[in-house]
Amino acid sequence: MDFETGERVKIEKNSRNYEGIVIPSSTYEGKDYITIKLDNGYNIGLKIDKGAKVEKLGKKAKVGKFEADVEIKETKGLPRIAVLSTGGTIASRVDYTHGGVRSDFTTKDLILAIPEIQEIANIETEEIGKKLSENIDPEDWVKMAKGIEKGVNKGVDGIVVTHGTDTMHYSSAAVSFMIQNTGVPVVFVGAQRSSDRPSSDAATNLLSALYFAGHADVSGVYVCMHENMDDGTCLIHKGTKVRKMHSSRRDAFKSINTEPVARITMETRNGKLLKKGLEWIEKPKYKPKQKKKISADTKIETNVALLKMHPGFDESLLKTKAKGIVLEGTGLGNINERYLKAIEKLDIPVVVATQTVYGKVNLNVYEPGRMLINAGVIPANDMTAETALVKLMWVLAHAKKDEVKNMMSSNLAGELE
Amino acid sequence: MDFETGERVKIEKNSRNYEGIVIPSSTYEGKDYITIKLDNGYNIGLKIDKGAKVEKLGKKAKVGKFEADVEIKETKGLPRIAVLSTGGTIASRVDYTHGGVRSDFTTKDLILAIPEIQEIANIETEEIGKKLSENIDPEDWVKMAKGIEKGVNKGVDGIVVTHGTDTMHYSSAAVSFMIQNTGVPVVFVGAQRSSDRPSSDAATNLLSALYFAGHADVSGVYVCMHENMDDGTCLIHKGTKVRKMHSSRRDAFKSINTEPVARITMETRNGKLLKKGLEWIEKPKYKPKQKKKISADTKIETNVALLKMHPGFDESLLKTKAKGIVLEGTGLGNINERYLKAIEKLDIPVVVATQTVYGKVNLNVYEPGRMLINAGVIPANDMTAETALVKLMWVLAHAKKDEVKNMMSSNLAGELE
Repeated sequence: MDFETGERVKIEKNSRNYEGIVIPSSTYEGKDYITIKLDNGYNIGLKIDKGAKVEKLGKKAKVGKFEADVEIKETKGLPRIAVLSTGGTIASRVDYTHGGVRSDFTTKDLILAIPEIQEIANIETEEIGKKLSENIDPEDWVKMAKGIEKGVNKGVDGIVVTHGTDTMHYSSAAVSFMIQNTGVPVVFVGAQRSSDRPSSDAATNLLSALYFAGHADVSGVYVCMHENMDDGTCLIHKGTKVRKMHSSRRDAFKSINTEPVARITMETRNGKLLKKGLEWIEKPKYKPKQKKKISADTKIETNVALLKMHPGFDESLLKTKAKGIVLEGTGLGNINERYLKAIEKLDIPVVVATQTVYGKVNLNVYEPGRMLINAGVIPANDMTAETALVKLMWVLAHAKKDEVKNMMSSNLAGELE
Repeated sequence: MDFETGERVKIEKNSRNYEGIVIPSSTYEGKDYITIKLDNGYNIGLKIDKGAKVEKLGKKAKVGKFEADVEIKETKGLPRIAVLSTGGTIASRVDYTHGGVRSDFTTKDLILAIPEIQEIANIETEEIGKKLSENIDPEDWVKMAKGIEKGVNKGVDGIVVTHGTDTMHYSSAAVSFMIQNTGVPVVFVGAQRSSDRPSSDAATNLLSALYFAGHADVSGVYVCMHENMDDGTCLIHKGTKVRKMHSSRRDAFKSINTEPVARITMETRNGKLLKKGLEWIEKPKYKPKQKKKISADTKIETNVALLKMHPGFDESLLKTKAKGIVLEGTGLGNINERYLKAIEKLDIPVVVATQTVYGKVNLNVYEPGRMLINAGVIPANDMTAETALVKLMWVLAHAKKDEVKNMMSSNLAGELE
């Protein structure tokens, strides 16, 4: 069965009904999939197989000719920002006014969706990926770093990377290690609600990211997301010190073991900018902003295991073919002493983080912790387990065996405070 | 070399110096270990091997005859509480006034350490374990449940279980499933700082736990810990909805995806009780308190894996000999689609939780999520990954294969809201 973009359909599948407008799919490329925009604003991808009953409702939405609707201005005095898209839903929306549907990622699409952009920055867009963020693999980090390198070397004032939220903190950490001196601000941004839902955070987040990328006088990699449940402010987090801490809330991203870097005020109404501002909370000690050519160092050893300790943990998981392990211990980084011997026998780097998420690892308090240290185990200190994992992947591709511990314990990209 | 309790020693080991008072070790039973109480209040266990240089400083602290110092009163009108100790440091302290050291766990020790106890409850103590909580294994949960059963069946008004903090939330969840109708309140309590440090939270936590156990008119399993960085109030959390969220702060324990059950006010000065109180925040829907005989159902299948998904996750970890798996997906419980086929092939129960810690799992939003559900995967909904793990261990020992999904999706002990 063929579907046209904009067509209204009702689909019955697995005893559930879905009604909405067919939109171009950026995720499911196969012929047997369609993506519909439900009336509640969610996009849903459905496999049209034998179990699916499809009814065409005929009310075809017009696909607007949006290209004519907006004039892209080059405004003097505004910063020039490269916006790189990796997928995710930040720019997708049904335009209810025009009755059409858009999910491409072009400069015009973005400006149509969020017209205030033209009051903040001159943007140029590039699509470097088309993935939901749960599907992001380490190879995608390489694409992101190379895309950022390319953007920075074109001489822009800052970079914004749009990204699904699920693994955004893994990506921001990976890019932090791959480009340790970005020259200009690199800001990852996502949305917890797709941009056509009434409660969407997409516009505020993107505008705030653009504003920080254009106006902060620092280098480094950051994440920009809503500060709380209200609109109006976003927080800027260090790319190596942030974590998604809620599955659905708009303020899901939290700085871990540090303060956020800055607060961006961004108030808009009906497509007009009312108020904007940048307030430093804890300005990072990164190099000052400096436009220059950069080079991404994307070599990475992806064969690293992340294992969470728990009562009943299966010791055989430690016998891994991985080139390194990050263990999520309990509390200060404690490990059940029944596993100490197996850990001592490992001849690969073992980093110990904590599953409490917040707080530092400290293996010096108790003797078993020091036995771990004597066995060569590397405490993650105040790094999250996720940042420790990504860092170990990068370090293993850059250090000789006897240099790994030293490199893991050194602050490379703001990950240790 | 032999050491006497109370002796002051200086030990040089691994280029570090440790000076303090030798205390009886409750953890390291071997002859070559000693435990000293450092001047900062921390206990430290040290292996006295060839690398250790020991200097006896001679200033021997007197070991007091504390037994004469306190009269255990049986006060009419106060509730009768059984206090079960599993190890941990809540009752250990150096008595600087008397120059002695105590770390046994008797009613007298507890009352000596925290004299206000006698204004709150008539206690009877029992040591059911001697483990740091990182070393707690599923077998220890069985001991706890049997100890609670025994205590309840003696006719007490409530139970308090002292426990190290690292894995306390795994234990409180396990006991919640093993005794689904406790009759009287069962309260787990720990301390982030050992009780002789000036900033110790031990006294307030224990007194608050005793007060709740004695006065709350509900059954169920709870955790009692500091509310914030001040003294004066503790929070009562549901045993299945709580998690250690900081490696060192006193307010490390947080209710996840629910409000705490109650706030306990507990103000003391110089061993005297100034103010106490119980304020319900969200009274749980457990059965009302009822003194009656109970029976713990401790059967448990401990061979369950907890695997955290991440970019670069090694698919071969899914080929496990475990009888069930809990996967920590990203965001709403999403799993990288490259692993879907391997998951579909598994013929053991697979539960999907979220690594965001906060927020629910919802696999109905996107098609891949529904593919997981069609493959038999069980969403953890609003359960933490830790509670989902412990519950799956219990359910696998109690359900036929085709009943596991239904049982995991049913609220057995307040874990699903």
